[in-house]
Amino acid sequence: MAGKKVLIVYAHQEPRSFNGSLKKVAVEELSKQGCAITVSDLYAMDFEPRATRKDVIDRDLHLPVVIKTEEVMCGAQHLIGALSNPKFFNYGVEAYEAFKKRSLASDITDEQKKVQEADLVIFQFPLYWFSVPAILKGWMDRVLCQGFAFDIPGFYDSGFLKNKLALLSLTTGGTAEMYGKTGVSGDFRYFLWPLQHGALHFCGFKVLAPQISFAPEIASEEERKAMVASWAQRLKTIWEEEPIDCTPAWYFGH
Amino acid sequence: MAGKKVLIVYAHQEPRSFNGSLKKVAVEELSKQGCAITVSDLYAMDFEPRATRKDVIDRDLHLPVVIKTEEVMCGAQHLIGALSNPKFFNYGVEAYEAFKKRSLASDITDEQKKVQEADLVIFQFPLYWFSVPAILKGWMDRVLCQGFAFDIPGFYDSGFLKNKLALLSLTTGGTAEMYGKTGVSGDFRYFLWPLQHGALHFCGFKVLAPQISFAPEIASEEERKAMVASWAQRLKTIWEEEPIDCTPAWYFGH
Repeated sequence: MAGKKVLIVYAHQEPRSFNGSLKKVAVEELSKQGCAITVSDLYAMDFEPRATRKDVIDRDLHLPVVIKTEEVMCGAQHLIGALSNPKFFNYGVEAYEAFKKRSLASDITDEQKKVQEADLVIFQFPLYWFSVPAILKGWMDRVLCQGFAFDIPGFYDSGFLKNKLALLSLTTGGTAEMYGKTGVSGDFRYFLWPLQHGALHFCGFKVLAPQISFAPEIASEEERKAMVASWAQRLKTIWEEEPIDCTPAWYFGH
Repeated sequence: MAGKKVLIVYAHQEPRSFNGSLKKVAVEELSKQGCAITVSDLYAMDFEPRATRKDVIDRDLHLPVVIKTEEVMCGAQHLIGALSNPKFFNYGVEAYEAFKKRSLASDITDEQKKVQEADLVIFQFPLYWFSVPAILKGWMDRVLCQGFAFDIPGFYDSGFLKNKLALLSLTTGGTAEMYGKTGVSGDFRYFLWPLQHGALHFCGFKVLAPQISFAPEIASEEERKAMVASWAQRLKTIWEEEPIDCTPAWYFGH
């Protein structure tokens, strides 16, 4: 829909991959609609997944003063900011305080700005161990911090991103049969719970139905094309979709 | 039990944290029993979570020949090995081939050796977004590669790590009530599915019941001590425990 803003958080190493095709077709289709699209290409950005003391920086330093920190391994040196409790490092607390003091690392605040501006966030990734690849998990761990995405109270339906939509578009190694109700890997909705409910819904996102492309690596070229086309087709009416009812019933049928 | 080997994969930034205490008491208790214990302290190791082209190295190079790669960002230079398909990077395929050719990066093979030698692998971590922190997700993504942990066929009950035990020991931010059957975050077993079934069981591990320490940050000092003591107590008879029945029924009651 013209005027809508979309952020695509994309986690694949190979531009010519099937995930790359799904990302490309989404950019094309949403551009045609007049949407403004931003892509965070995590591997191309070499996005940092680790949640560490380095995420608290000193924004007030005008000169590149380099301070040695004992916590930083391998002798690396960094521009670091003061911790709220330097004697006991608690990542969640420090990230919350740093968010409030505007002293979070810029790779985090850059992503937060993109999320803040987006009406819809699409996550495009291959399923790794029933979840997102570590580089994307790190994006969630670091970007969706307390103060920005939620507070206590201020989560689930009151999460700070409650006026936004989120959608997981993922590819699997296993087939649709393996992810059926009686399949060896269990219903695909089971593995969506931590991502859609535990992370996205917790931050307030309204979750659209996932787009799952099953086993593209063992599909024929024709089947792969059909999966890409079906994603493009769905995006034509994506703004008319109602979010799923993100409760245990949707996932586990009870 | 004397003679048993235990690997503790530990993912917390702060040695004096509650997770640090749980790790410490496990080392102490298992040492008393005469077990041989190895700890992989992921943050202290600055463990790499990203699954990239850098994981395929050239083991035959005797001299430190440095080859520039276009794929590596920020102008970094690395000793890289030949890819099975340099024109289309597929991480799963390349890691599988590199495992067979013994050309996986040494941080991966070091961890694989530790897993290979272990009778029991304990994962000690704080829950981040209903899952493991990204640094530990990266350990799973990179270490448990095809050829080492499983093959197709050769997964779930036939997974290559089928003679080993695994146990998740985790701390939560939310309370036990929030993770009750009717709690706002749903039964805690729901979020264990991708980790215990999708990753560990897939590789063949027999999964012991999780050790969940709920909300240590809002507990009293006395309650925290009781949680640490209960973990130490459980470890005294850990070798007598039967694995859980890692099927949908255990997680979802159907």
